[in-house]
Amino acid sequence: MTTGVRRRLTVEERRQQLIGVALDLFARRSPDEVSIDEIASAAGISRPLVYHYFPGKLSLYEAALKRAAEDLADRFREPHEGPLGARLLRVMRRYFDFVDDHGPGFSALMRGGPAVGSSTANALIDSVRQAAYVQILSHLRIEEPPARLELVVRSWISLAESTALLWLDGRRVPREELEVQLVQDFAALIAVAAANDGPTAALLKPLLRDEPGDGPFADLVTRLVLLAA
Amino acid sequence: MTTGVRRRLTVEERRQQLIGVALDLFARRSPDEVSIDEIASAAGISRPLVYHYFPGKLSLYEAALKRAAEDLADRFREPHEGPLGARLLRVMRRYFDFVDDHGPGFSALMRGGPAVGSSTANALIDSVRQAAYVQILSHLRIEEPPARLELVVRSWISLAESTALLWLDGRRVPREELEVQLVQDFAALIAVAAANDGPTAALLKPLLRDEPGDGPFADLVTRLVLLAA
Repeated sequence: MTTGVRRRLTVEERRQQLIGVALDLFARRSPDEVSIDEIASAAGISRPLVYHYFPGKLSLYEAALKRAAEDLADRFREPHEGPLGARLLRVMRRYFDFVDDHGPGFSALMRGGPAVGSSTANALIDSVRQAAYVQILSHLRIEEPPARLELVVRSWISLAESTALLWLDGRRVPREELEVQLVQDFAALIAVAAANDGPTAALLKPLLRDEPGDGPFADLVTRLVLLAA
Repeated sequence: MTTGVRRRLTVEERRQQLIGVALDLFARRSPDEVSIDEIASAAGISRPLVYHYFPGKLSLYEAALKRAAEDLADRFREPHEGPLGARLLRVMRRYFDFVDDHGPGFSALMRGGPAVGSSTANALIDSVRQAAYVQILSHLRIEEPPARLELVVRSWISLAESTALLWLDGRRVPREELEVQLVQDFAALIAVAAANDGPTAALLKPLLRDEPGDGPFADLVTRLVLLAA
């Protein structure tokens, strides 16, 4: 548990180390099942010392959650270059990388983990959704969306969450297929909204014109035409 | 608070009355904000008497949740008659009736209310989702769906939940439009899955053949063609 070269960590370094250790453990087992003893042991320090840095397990869980939320929100950042479908697909790849890496922790949080109901956990979940929403709007080049478009973008973000959660339960569909599917779902849901709402249609038409013939949006249209034939 | 004609209620009648009173209050304000005193007062009995029927607020909340969950699950039951799109639209109308009638209670539950994290609340939420899933599969006339189709049906149920939750926050889109939108979303998501998955396509093609030219599915196709023009 000790090494000859270990130097004394600062308080902040130690806190960050414990957060990292906790996230590693939560990635393999539900946070409910991970004890402070295990976290202490994995970090190579005593249990009382953990309590020196975090007053309790909830506090450490919330700190870990905060780091994970920032990480997840960051994955929605994408350069404003190239066709929209390809950008969204890269975002979905990073999103599923996260889900893949944090499986049990992600499930526990989204399905009611130890800190759910705590205002901190709910605020962090909301902050990720809001960051994703702001990013997607910026890629749509829209600042003030009509109510219907806002609802569609936000509900698609929920769809990505629920699809990822369902995928984690058995991983019976290759994740690469779901990444493409979610990009196509985005196109499909936006199309339904545009088909029923003039302002949404007017905003989106110019964007679709920029999509290449071999992107996920065009691929969907081709496949749908084949299906209907 | 008392009437001359009140007769003595049985234990079960009194429990049911208290559940009904609690649901009425939760329909107007979040369960967090409703006290046992208010429930007692609205039921015309004393606070200690409430505790005679329910050991605490959580127990009463869970009983209310159970009744609401059964009610909500029932709304997914629909006769196996007529085109699929029209059946789903009737289900969505009843679903939004429920959401409209139970706004604050529905939001609190889905966003982390007092009993969230309790295994009872999570099990009840899951039971509603499962009932909805079984009903929809039966309307698709499918007993053992391929993994991809299962995932799409379950994720559409989540989409209906999140759309309803987002709608409750401001009600800025007429609910009738969202009911139609969700039916068309179902068609769109199923189409994306079918476009990418042979087994799903094979199962769904016969169903689409039965859809009438003036149903929500056909309406979507017409609108999409107009949009693309």
